[in-house]
Amino acid sequence: MKRIRIIVAYDGTGYCGWQIQPNGITIEEVLNHALSGLLGEPIRIIGASRTDSGVHALGNVAVFDTKTRIPPERISYALNQHLPDDIVIVRSEEVPGDWHPRYCNCVKTYEYHIFNAKVPDPVRRRTAYFVSYPLDLGEMRRAAAYLIGEHDFASFCNIKTSVEDTVRTIYELEILERSVQGPEDYRDGREIRIRIRGNGFLYNMVRIIVGTLLRVGRKYYTPEQVKEILEAKNRQAAGVTAPPQGLVLEKIEYPL
Amino acid sequence: MKRIRIIVAYDGTGYCGWQIQPNGITIEEVLNHALSGLLGEPIRIIGASRTDSGVHALGNVAVFDTKTRIPPERISYALNQHLPDDIVIVRSEEVPGDWHPRYCNCVKTYEYHIFNAKVPDPVRRRTAYFVSYPLDLGEMRRAAAYLIGEHDFASFCNIKTSVEDTVRTIYELEILERSVQGPEDYRDGREIRIRIRGNGFLYNMVRIIVGTLLRVGRKYYTPEQVKEILEAKNRQAAGVTAPPQGLVLEKIEYPL
Repeated sequence: MKRIRIIVAYDGTGYCGWQIQPNGITIEEVLNHALSGLLGEPIRIIGASRTDSGVHALGNVAVFDTKTRIPPERISYALNQHLPDDIVIVRSEEVPGDWHPRYCNCVKTYEYHIFNAKVPDPVRRRTAYFVSYPLDLGEMRRAAAYLIGEHDFASFCNIKTSVEDTVRTIYELEILERSVQGPEDYRDGREIRIRIRGNGFLYNMVRIIVGTLLRVGRKYYTPEQVKEILEAKNRQAAGVTAPPQGLVLEKIEYPL
Repeated sequence: MKRIRIIVAYDGTGYCGWQIQPNGITIEEVLNHALSGLLGEPIRIIGASRTDSGVHALGNVAVFDTKTRIPPERISYALNQHLPDDIVIVRSEEVPGDWHPRYCNCVKTYEYHIFNAKVPDPVRRRTAYFVSYPLDLGEMRRAAAYLIGEHDFASFCNIKTSVEDTVRTIYELEILERSVQGPEDYRDGREIRIRIRGNGFLYNMVRIIVGTLLRVGRKYYTPEQVKEILEAKNRQAAGVTAPPQGLVLEKIEYPL
């Protein structure tokens, strides 16, 4: 028996998220099915991050145990032949039998993509949140600074979960921009990426942070109010949850 | 009766191209249906460019005649409420009753997007052609130079058409690149955009040019061979047609 770790990239548009559930098709289910078919034994993977419906990933991580004689590094190639083109196995390798993808001391990086322009671009609609109002990125960066470090993020957690410990550490929270030239001047815009790296995130935490920062960018909140929102430790205090299509799980780093 | 011109952007993934046809749903059909419903009269639009299945547009152009009393500039807004989110009307305005979107002296700009990396990115699969082999952009640019200007592009025309005159003028043919940092080093890559501006294009011409330039980038053809391919005036001489998902009709310019 070998434990295999896979790095998985996917376009989450067509899936009800990672985790198996009765209402629709999920990434986990498709991977279990493809792996069981490929390896000729029932496979149940364990994923690192149970991304939500519509959320994308460049580097989610999962493991499974198998008796296969296919060399571990070749499994990614073979498995990709059995997968739809919106799921790609980037890499496969053997790990020790006790290695688990949900180590509490792993570090996750997410990016949230916003297309900020006067006119929406339908080609971007699955991979970026369209925002038509002007955004003050300077104010957003000042607000973001309050969130960096170890804090109780209870205000930024979907109330549907029941975690006891809502303390997390954000190591980096960057707001990057790139101007985009449209076919005509009135369609010029910019791509904004909110890049966030931390030691685990609460349910919907990245999307609530983004929704809150967007309110700052719109001058609906001051940066200082984000400090108050954080201190309130109450979900009602923060902004709305930004929609899923802008979110990408970039990578998960594990201690060596 | 008023003639209204609309600028249309769309994600072509879910459509069998622009033009109405029996095998599946098309952009033209969806627009006719939405306009007829909105305006309460049967509307048949005339499009400028009959883009292929899977090809996108930021600025296709169409006209229709209507008796509506909705102000011309407001039609875009009203129509967007009746359209799926993969089609967006960017602008609407009244034009003279004899204005036609297929004026022979209009200038079209296309962009072809390539994602060049070792590992595919499923999030980009609908909007870029994934190329895993190395590409020599210097050689591609030298080859592209032979195509700029007025030429007989018979070698770059799908043989299924029967146009008599295969002479066209390419004003610009640029190859641009932007490096893309992946979540890990081995996933770094680049976005390549082949931008082409000309006075009309033959059927599949842009995609055959791209397929041919990719063979140059791969060192399968020399740049000088592209000159020979052009002079051969024979479709068999050129490279394969690049797939549709990388292609975007950026804009159509009309003489004032």
